[in-house]
Amino acid sequence: MITYVSPDDMQAAANRARSEGRRIAVVPTMGALHRGHLALVREARSQGDVVITTIFVNPTQFGPAEDFDRYPRSLQHDSKLAEEAGTDILFAPAAEAIYPPQYQTYVTVRDVSARLEGALRPDHFRGVVTVVAKLVNLTKPHAAVFGQKDVQQVAVIRRMLRDLNFDIRLIVVPTVREPDGLALSSRNVYLSSSQRKEAPVLFASLRRAESMIRSGVRSRQAIHDAVQETIAGGSSAVIDYVSIADAETFDELEEFRSGASVVVSLAARFGSTRLIDNICITV
Amino acid sequence: MITYVSPDDMQAAANRARSEGRRIAVVPTMGALHRGHLALVREARSQGDVVITTIFVNPTQFGPAEDFDRYPRSLQHDSKLAEEAGTDILFAPAAEAIYPPQYQTYVTVRDVSARLEGALRPDHFRGVVTVVAKLVNLTKPHAAVFGQKDVQQVAVIRRMLRDLNFDIRLIVVPTVREPDGLALSSRNVYLSSSQRKEAPVLFASLRRAESMIRSGVRSRQAIHDAVQETIAGGSSAVIDYVSIADAETFDELEEFRSGASVVVSLAARFGSTRLIDNICITV
Repeated sequence: MITYVSPDDMQAAANRARSEGRRIAVVPTMGALHRGHLALVREARSQGDVVITTIFVNPTQFGPAEDFDRYPRSLQHDSKLAEEAGTDILFAPAAEAIYPPQYQTYVTVRDVSARLEGALRPDHFRGVVTVVAKLVNLTKPHAAVFGQKDVQQVAVIRRMLRDLNFDIRLIVVPTVREPDGLALSSRNVYLSSSQRKEAPVLFASLRRAESMIRSGVRSRQAIHDAVQETIAGGSSAVIDYVSIADAETFDELEEFRSGASVVVSLAARFGSTRLIDNICITV
Repeated sequence: MITYVSPDDMQAAANRARSEGRRIAVVPTMGALHRGHLALVREARSQGDVVITTIFVNPTQFGPAEDFDRYPRSLQHDSKLAEEAGTDILFAPAAEAIYPPQYQTYVTVRDVSARLEGALRPDHFRGVVTVVAKLVNLTKPHAAVFGQKDVQQVAVIRRMLRDLNFDIRLIVVPTVREPDGLALSSRNVYLSSSQRKEAPVLFASLRRAESMIRSGVRSRQAIHDAVQETIAGGSSAVIDYVSIADAETFDELEEFRSGASVVVSLAARFGSTRLIDNICITV
C-alpha cells in the first residue's frame, strides 16, 4: 500500500492507473475505521483493479457547534486496517491541502439536501458533496463505494454525481451492525456503558417499522408513533427526527404505493452523542 | 465532424478518445459563432488530437429579465463554421438533456463571482461554472479554451477548476476585434448603425487607461475618470461599471505595484444592448 498526502501526487497516480487501463474504485472515509468501512474496502476490492481509500476529516461538513475537533483520528491504526482490507493507495491529505487559502468554491444540492440531516445541520451536505466532487477529481475512480448507514448522504451524493455528469458508478454497501443490532459508527466510542446498552433500541424501532409495513400497515402516523414509542420505551435518547420518506427524493411519504422504495430513518441523541440509523423497504 | 446531441453519446465518445490515448481540447460556446470563437477552435486544434466544440445556450446563466429567449441561435451556420475551423466533434445538447426534471445541483464560486458582472447579474456565474463543470465531465478534456473577452468569467472558471481539482489546463485566447477596435460579440448584431459607429469608443477608453498606466499614472481615480470621460465624450452609452482590478481576485486596486496584473474592464449599454470589454496590463 502506498500513502499519498499530496493532492497532486494522488492525481498523478490516478492518471497513471487510468493510462494503464486499470479500473479504480474509491472509498471516501473520515478515518476512525471500523468493520463497516472495511466492508466498503472489500467491496471496492471486488470492483476495481486499484483500490483507493481516502481518509479526510472534512472540516466543511461540520457545523461550528459540532464535533470536528474531537472527531476520532487514528491514522496509523487506520492505515493498518485499510491495508489489511485490500487498499492499494491510501490518500490522507491535510485540510490545508484540500482547502488552501483563497478557496471559495462549493457544490450544493438543493431539495434532497434540505431535509432531515440537512435541516438540522446547515451546510453539512454542501461540505459533503463539495469534498466528494474534489476527491473524485483527485482519485478519478470508475466506482465510488459508500455505506447505506448514511442513507441521505448517499441520496445527495447520487444526485450530485448524476446532475454534474460525473462518469462514476456509485455502489452502496449494507450497514454493518453489532450482534445486538447497533449500526457501527465511529461515534459509538463516545457512548457510556449504559448508553451503549440502550442504543440497540434504534435498530429495534426500525425493525418494528419494517414489520408493520410488511404486514400491511399503511398509516404513516401509526408507523411513526411505533418507532418513537419503541425508542422512548427502551432508552433515555432524545429523538431528533423519525422520517418515513421516498428513498430518492427524501420527500416524506403519506402513502406507500406498491413497489415504492421507502426509507425509515432516524437520528437520536444519547447525551451529547448523536447517532443515525435507517432501514430501506421496497413496499 | 460528428455532431452529438445526447450527453451519454458525448461522454462515450470522450471515453473512447481517452482510451485511445488521444488528447482532448474543448471549446465551450453558446453558439452564434463569430471569428472570436473560431480563434478559440483553432487554438484548441493546436492543443489537442480531438477538438470538441460545444454549443449550448445555457438557461441558468441568464437572469429572468435578460435576453435568453432572443439570444441568437443558428445551429446550421454554426456547425459549418465550427467544422471549417477544425472541430472534430460538435456537442449541441437540448436544455432538457442538460437540466432534466429533478435537476438540483449548482456550483458556486464565492468572492470573485460577487464582483462586477456578478453584482449586476445575480446567479450568472453560478450558471456559468455549473454548466462548465457539467461540460467538462461530459467531454473529458485535457484542455479547455476560453476567450479573454469574458475576463471575469475566465477568472471564475479558473477558480472553480482549481478549487474542485479538475485536472484540466485552461487556455485563454486574446480578444478578437473589428478593425476599428470593437470586440467581437454575438450581441453586436443588436446594435443600430449609429450605435455600431459609437461602440469602438469602449476599446478606445481602455487603450487610454493602458497608456496612462504605462506612462506612470498611479491614481486609480484619474484612470477611472479618463475611461468614463472617453466613453461619455464619444457615445450615448450608459456605463454599468468601470473597474480597475486585480486579474485573479477582481478586488478593486487602489495602488498598482510593479509586476501586478491589472484588468481594466467595463460594461456599457447602447440602448438595450449591453457590451463588455477589457484590457489586461502587467504594471
